[in-house]
Amino acid sequence: MSFVDWFDDYEDRDWQTTTEGTVRYALVGLGWWTTEVAMPAIADSEFGETTVLVSSSTEKAEQVAEENDVSRGITNDDFKDGEASEHYDAVYVCTPNAYHLEYVEAAAELDKGIICEKPMEASVERAERMVEACEHGGVPLMIAYRMQTEPAVRRARELVESGFVGEPMTVYGHNSQPLLEMIPDPNQWRLTPDLTGYGTSVMDLGIYSINTARYLLDRDPVAVQSILATEHEDFEGLDDERAAFMLDFDGIEMVSTATQNGQTDSQLTITGTEGQVEIRPAFPGTCRLHVRRGDQSLDFDREEFGAVEEMREEFDYFADRLLTSTPIKPDGEHGLFDLKIVRAIHEAAKTDRSVAISE
Amino acid sequence: MSFVDWFDDYEDRDWQTTTEGTVRYALVGLGWWTTEVAMPAIADSEFGETTVLVSSSTEKAEQVAEENDVSRGITNDDFKDGEASEHYDAVYVCTPNAYHLEYVEAAAELDKGIICEKPMEASVERAERMVEACEHGGVPLMIAYRMQTEPAVRRARELVESGFVGEPMTVYGHNSQPLLEMIPDPNQWRLTPDLTGYGTSVMDLGIYSINTARYLLDRDPVAVQSILATEHEDFEGLDDERAAFMLDFDGIEMVSTATQNGQTDSQLTITGTEGQVEIRPAFPGTCRLHVRRGDQSLDFDREEFGAVEEMREEFDYFADRLLTSTPIKPDGEHGLFDLKIVRAIHEAAKTDRSVAISE
Repeated sequence: MSFVDWFDDYEDRDWQTTTEGTVRYALVGLGWWTTEVAMPAIADSEFGETTVLVSSSTEKAEQVAEENDVSRGITNDDFKDGEASEHYDAVYVCTPNAYHLEYVEAAAELDKGIICEKPMEASVERAERMVEACEHGGVPLMIAYRMQTEPAVRRARELVESGFVGEPMTVYGHNSQPLLEMIPDPNQWRLTPDLTGYGTSVMDLGIYSINTARYLLDRDPVAVQSILATEHEDFEGLDDERAAFMLDFDGIEMVSTATQNGQTDSQLTITGTEGQVEIRPAFPGTCRLHVRRGDQSLDFDREEFGAVEEMREEFDYFADRLLTSTPIKPDGEHGLFDLKIVRAIHEAAKTDRSVAISE
Repeated sequence: MSFVDWFDDYEDRDWQTTTEGTVRYALVGLGWWTTEVAMPAIADSEFGETTVLVSSSTEKAEQVAEENDVSRGITNDDFKDGEASEHYDAVYVCTPNAYHLEYVEAAAELDKGIICEKPMEASVERAERMVEACEHGGVPLMIAYRMQTEPAVRRARELVESGFVGEPMTVYGHNSQPLLEMIPDPNQWRLTPDLTGYGTSVMDLGIYSINTARYLLDRDPVAVQSILATEHEDFEGLDDERAAFMLDFDGIEMVSTATQNGQTDSQLTITGTEGQVEIRPAFPGTCRLHVRRGDQSLDFDREEFGAVEEMREEFDYFADRLLTSTPIKPDGEHGLFDLKIVRAIHEAAKTDRSVAISE
């Protein structure tokens, strides 16, 4: 491929297989990510249309529906009872982690395609139940790792696959944000142990580094080590206000840091014997690709490709697979493995030793 | 301090206490670092003068002396016997790690000031003997961590001290180079277990991340965890062709990677609750400072400040302290602690668990 082609094809949807069809979505959980990112992304997408909004109260569901020109707003209970199910083909689940399972189970009962936010649930056991529910219902389940359809990440993966970095040797992943400045509420669900699951910084931020490394390297870690710490009072009951961990990819070593109480930054760097591929910022919706090989380097900037565009790509990928009845990745098993990694990271911190990730 | 002052004073020698005097050096070990970096640095320095070169053979010592306009070239044995000792005031030791001790011991016997390259020796035990020899001889010993007189690193330290990053939360240090491309000799000392000591990537590269983090945070780690691996045949007998390790600074967590078989790169990043200080490149002689706080960032570039300039600052700092008979940091105890960290990193990799760093 010529450099001009590489440049011009950068944002090409190398995954796209169809150009026809529509997927109508019910969106469950109307937090800011759904209203400010997912809904605009679906509106901007080729295949998607939001037809039903689902929230805790009739009032909220109807109000948000009206504000966003969506025809139906229903309650969580209505949704579980199958109300308006003839008006949507697929369900996007974006509630607090610990509520994912019940909506996925309901959607599976209703025979709908499902795209569920990451981490897929609050524990390994509940994630396993989710996988079983979708298998039992015979419905496709995608876990919403939008990095896997991010053009910068996909180009980075191609570069690693093609040998640009030589043999990958070390990986660094970082993700930090000042959560309490972004959402000044100490009682928010990300800081509520029962709702978030295994802590907060690894579950909510570290998971980006973990999953993107798995995707870029096309392999899974076999063991982890970690140091977790909490000091801030608003993180009470959670062990990882900040987190440092290492993933042993059986021949490639990754180190990673994450904190919900830190300056915003994110980075994913793979250093190989002959080159380096880096995405920085990596995860907040403005991925920038940087590559180095020998004494040459290249920084690739795109304008106007943020979280909405990333979610648009993800929804259209999901729809493409749904419309053509072909397998969808990343699936439930893939997301389940991340939860096993996160669980092992929390175990390792307690024991001060390496913990193998059980299959 | 105004921003203009900060800019203009960036390279100020905030450590300087005198403007008079000369320190005459004997340089022991005439590898490329000595001839291409240390010697030009001393020539460019305010207080230094190279008067004696010391090497394995009379021929080599005299040849290098002649090529560099130095008046005397003597052998290692001559040096140990005190030959020409009236012609130098201080000794710079830049041999393979495992030879440092014998030259420091000889210099201490001769009552000379000593600046010894890092890591200070091949093992904790030998480093302890070095500290004892200098204490016994009553001579000053500085370990040549040139980052501690690097203007970018000193400014970064000031920023951390002044609260620019808020509370430091996580640290990342990385250092990689393609050693066998730089020095295409599988029998070089850095790949020879008896000469390098505890492996190669942590001893030779990781030590920059470790020591610079200690300096920037002004605290020491209490425990380490690590994953080390070797595959390349030229690294036989060494356990860390590549290394991933975590340092527990008792309230701040650091993750780090290093490899002697990787694309050249280096980075030292401290992420705090309110900001970030980063040096990248960090260690190869062209430190660039990057700072971020909230949604603002600043990248500070200097031209023409490479390894020679870094070594010049270090030699002049050493000379300043020697000429004024004041204590020199980083001293032997400081360097010894790094070797305890490195030893613990190698122990941790064998046991797959956290290893406390013994005082």
